[in-house]
Amino acid sequence: MKVVVVNKAGFCFGVKRAIEQAFEIAKTEENVYTLGPLIHNPQVIEALRGVGVKVAGDIEDLAANGARTVMIRTHGVTREEMARLAEGNYKIIDLTCPFVKKAQHYAKLLSEEGYQVIILGDIEHPEVKGLRSYAGENAAIVKTSEELSEIKPKTGIVVQTTQPVDSLKRLVAGIIEHTKELKVYNTICSSTALRQKETQEVARAVDVMLVVGGKNSANTTQLAKLCESLSVPTYHVETAGEIRPEWLGGVRKMGLTAGASTPDWIIKDVEKALKDMGGSKK
Amino acid sequence: MKVVVVNKAGFCFGVKRAIEQAFEIAKTEENVYTLGPLIHNPQVIEALRGVGVKVAGDIEDLAANGARTVMIRTHGVTREEMARLAEGNYKIIDLTCPFVKKAQHYAKLLSEEGYQVIILGDIEHPEVKGLRSYAGENAAIVKTSEELSEIKPKTGIVVQTTQPVDSLKRLVAGIIEHTKELKVYNTICSSTALRQKETQEVARAVDVMLVVGGKNSANTTQLAKLCESLSVPTYHVETAGEIRPEWLGGVRKMGLTAGASTPDWIIKDVEKALKDMGGSKK
Repeated sequence: MKVVVVNKAGFCFGVKRAIEQAFEIAKTEENVYTLGPLIHNPQVIEALRGVGVKVAGDIEDLAANGARTVMIRTHGVTREEMARLAEGNYKIIDLTCPFVKKAQHYAKLLSEEGYQVIILGDIEHPEVKGLRSYAGENAAIVKTSEELSEIKPKTGIVVQTTQPVDSLKRLVAGIIEHTKELKVYNTICSSTALRQKETQEVARAVDVMLVVGGKNSANTTQLAKLCESLSVPTYHVETAGEIRPEWLGGVRKMGLTAGASTPDWIIKDVEKALKDMGGSKK
Repeated sequence: MKVVVVNKAGFCFGVKRAIEQAFEIAKTEENVYTLGPLIHNPQVIEALRGVGVKVAGDIEDLAANGARTVMIRTHGVTREEMARLAEGNYKIIDLTCPFVKKAQHYAKLLSEEGYQVIILGDIEHPEVKGLRSYAGENAAIVKTSEELSEIKPKTGIVVQTTQPVDSLKRLVAGIIEHTKELKVYNTICSSTALRQKETQEVARAVDVMLVVGGKNSANTTQLAKLCESLSVPTYHVETAGEIRPEWLGGVRKMGLTAGASTPDWIIKDVEKALKDMGGSKK
């Protein structure tokens, strides 16, 4: 069995930057917390806990535990949370991904310029909750144009950084005829777009796809969905230990990809496990 | 044979307004010219000539013929032509369609705001030549995204008012992934869009379509193209005299539509001719 690894699998710029800084900060600061998990990968969060970085569920949690240093997760927090944190007596380290920051800025700008803001994204995702807090009261959060009950003549779009570009294409094509003025900030992160594109290319050429990363990671589950949409049998695991030998029965070529929040050591672990099961890297 | 007439067939707001004013002006002014034909319908231009309104091919023509009053056609003229006219000793009556004026304004605005302007339209059409003159030196004129050799991160789109909305949908879907910021002024005239939509609906329900209007009229030829794309046998005529009896052989239901520059009296003529050939209006 050949194993084809997607080039862009694993840590993106924003995640790498945040993780490196978090480990550095843990060396010197005391009572360090992140507000919500820093990234969506349970194994990395566990490793951070090992060096003393704890996760607070909300701002009340921070106060109750006497937090001193608070790190803002890569997905960002809401405008209100940021304001409340600033009022507290914390040392704040903002590790929001710079691309998410940019999307927040554009959401605010569109709202200020009088556009009805549409956020293309997952309503439950913390990044989207953050974007909404900047986009004004009437912002709509959708995945498709069909979900919109009303489209205003002056509409603005901002996008969760990990959305697939095809969703954006469909959204703009679906609403353009109902608008007079449409302003779109294509805030899809280029590294995400590239990872999705390469993953699709590999998925088309293999018998089975293995997607590695947090089950709670939006961009990782997105990769799995993209592979499934190409009718390739797809398995999503967080660690090597979850791989089941029966998945490999009769497989000549397997594709391997990983989300932006999946650390290199987990990818290497998975590669090693596949090798032990008879795989050879192509 | 039943004849189904499209509701929105014939004069649009901008054309009606221009024709009415032109006939009014002809009553009181002398040596009246239009710069280029007022609308794209030879029969109407002929009727205007009958009341003394002549067509000048260009600005030199105006001067050579001692024009006194100059009417600007519904499709508009270029910024440079407007400036040169203002320098001459003419009484200028601007009959540019207000929706075309708006599109010119947006083309200028996008250029001033630093967008690379794309004009969706027909490069040879006078309206598009006018739009280009406002859109800045680097404006691109295309019908599809495939024609673009380069797409800038900050791109703006303005649309020839008579383009089909599906072309705009395809254009935005085709370029969105290559931009970071896309601003679209959907300047497709709503009456054009509605006429196209109703024409398509009728075309789907009949055996043959008859499209009436100037052969040089962009919006009329667009109607014919839309019908042809639905695989309905389609005939484009300017007057009733062009209808050939053999087109009606075996036809149970015929659809009739007309462009925005087709006068009511020509449509009535066509309806009468069809009745004489055995058609009954539905």
